[in-house]
Amino acid sequence: MKVELKENESLCDLQRNGYQIIQDKDKFCFGMDAVLLSSFAEVREGERAIDFGTGTGVIPVLLEAKTEGQSFVGLEIQPESVDMAKRSVKMNNLEDKIEIVEGDIKNASEIFGKDSFDVVVTNPPYMSENNGLENPDAPKAIARHEVKCTLEDVIREAAAVLKPQGRFYMIHRPRRLADAMELMREYKIEPKRIRMVYPYVDKPSNMVLIEGARGGKPMMNIEEPLIVYEEPNVYTQDILDIYNK
Amino acid sequence: MKVELKENESLCDLQRNGYQIIQDKDKFCFGMDAVLLSSFAEVREGERAIDFGTGTGVIPVLLEAKTEGQSFVGLEIQPESVDMAKRSVKMNNLEDKIEIVEGDIKNASEIFGKDSFDVVVTNPPYMSENNGLENPDAPKAIARHEVKCTLEDVIREAAAVLKPQGRFYMIHRPRRLADAMELMREYKIEPKRIRMVYPYVDKPSNMVLIEGARGGKPMMNIEEPLIVYEEPNVYTQDILDIYNK
Repeated sequence: MKVELKENESLCDLQRNGYQIIQDKDKFCFGMDAVLLSSFAEVREGERAIDFGTGTGVIPVLLEAKTEGQSFVGLEIQPESVDMAKRSVKMNNLEDKIEIVEGDIKNASEIFGKDSFDVVVTNPPYMSENNGLENPDAPKAIARHEVKCTLEDVIREAAAVLKPQGRFYMIHRPRRLADAMELMREYKIEPKRIRMVYPYVDKPSNMVLIEGARGGKPMMNIEEPLIVYEEPNVYTQDILDIYNK
Repeated sequence: MKVELKENESLCDLQRNGYQIIQDKDKFCFGMDAVLLSSFAEVREGERAIDFGTGTGVIPVLLEAKTEGQSFVGLEIQPESVDMAKRSVKMNNLEDKIEIVEGDIKNASEIFGKDSFDVVVTNPPYMSENNGLENPDAPKAIARHEVKCTLEDVIREAAAVLKPQGRFYMIHRPRRLADAMELMREYKIEPKRIRMVYPYVDKPSNMVLIEGARGGKPMMNIEEPLIVYEEPNVYTQDILDIYNK
């Protein structure tokens, strides 16, 4: 396996199929949200999935490892991330399964055409407040704040690229839940399944996993709570199972 | 205390201030949903609250016991329930605090006028499917199914009778969460706070508590999960605290 690392880069082991991801030296390996989302999302045999805002490509790589999906696309606007993600795909010999595309979520349906995916997954920028950002063009700002695209852009384009009955999976912050559900309904992605993530059993939720179906009927299930920590630094069995699944 | 019970009636002890409620002999004393809702709802000193669809009046009586609210109205469409609720209020010497009004939720803003309450609480009929009901006029059907009023009626009228920034508290079923949040936004009651109720820590949610603010800004909190049972027949400490609070 030929690895071409730049000076500022390091390798991060996904602990799954021996897969590794190239990323910035100074960053965390990958967030728990990527792991939770790729476990919550279902990609069935023969299906084609896309990750909106894939960053270093960790979600398509995890989905390839965990699901029976046929092919996976990672869409990313930041050239540095696209470059890293492409080299990671190559490094893991996944070029026949995963394609990394440089482009804007806002243009997804133009780039890929309508009704072209069975599944859309996304861990979008979750901060809606851009005021006070010192440098809104910084890569970190783009990944975390709705600088380049809003939640509405994400959901509108997801609805456009999904086939009828196609499934949408998103991880987001609880405080945007009302926005997310309203926008999903506006663009005809019916919320079907929610799982609230709580850091501790006695603490407010800090992440929400949502599944929607394009053109689905109204009927929603709120699954069992996902508690992250038993006590400080001790994961619950649920979280260990998700990491090892 | 003078108690006038009819043949089919019995007394139910609310275990709070010595309050009792008159109700049908054959029914459960009162549901956990009434207790959870009256604990989740906040009625501040001097405030005026209304319960939409009060049934035997258990929620206004519990709110009177638990909060600093100044006055409470119970609105109920079924004459038999209204009669029981009125006698319960009298029996508990609460006539100066609680008023039971016979009327239709759909006409609430006509009956009481706009901007007339600080707080609306409701445990509305939660079944949207009326097809297949053998007797849609039966009291049980009216209390449980959306025969007499829909979720939209409830939310529209709540928005109408609430003062600006007035608070709306509802307990409902998880599968209607998307409907509830969409309708609340449509009628300008912004969802502010949600608490999911789970029967067990590893089971799907079966009840949802929602707080909204009329004209509030979008910013939502999903509170810690409320787990009902530690194991079969053993309540969690959270539930015991709510019953004893």
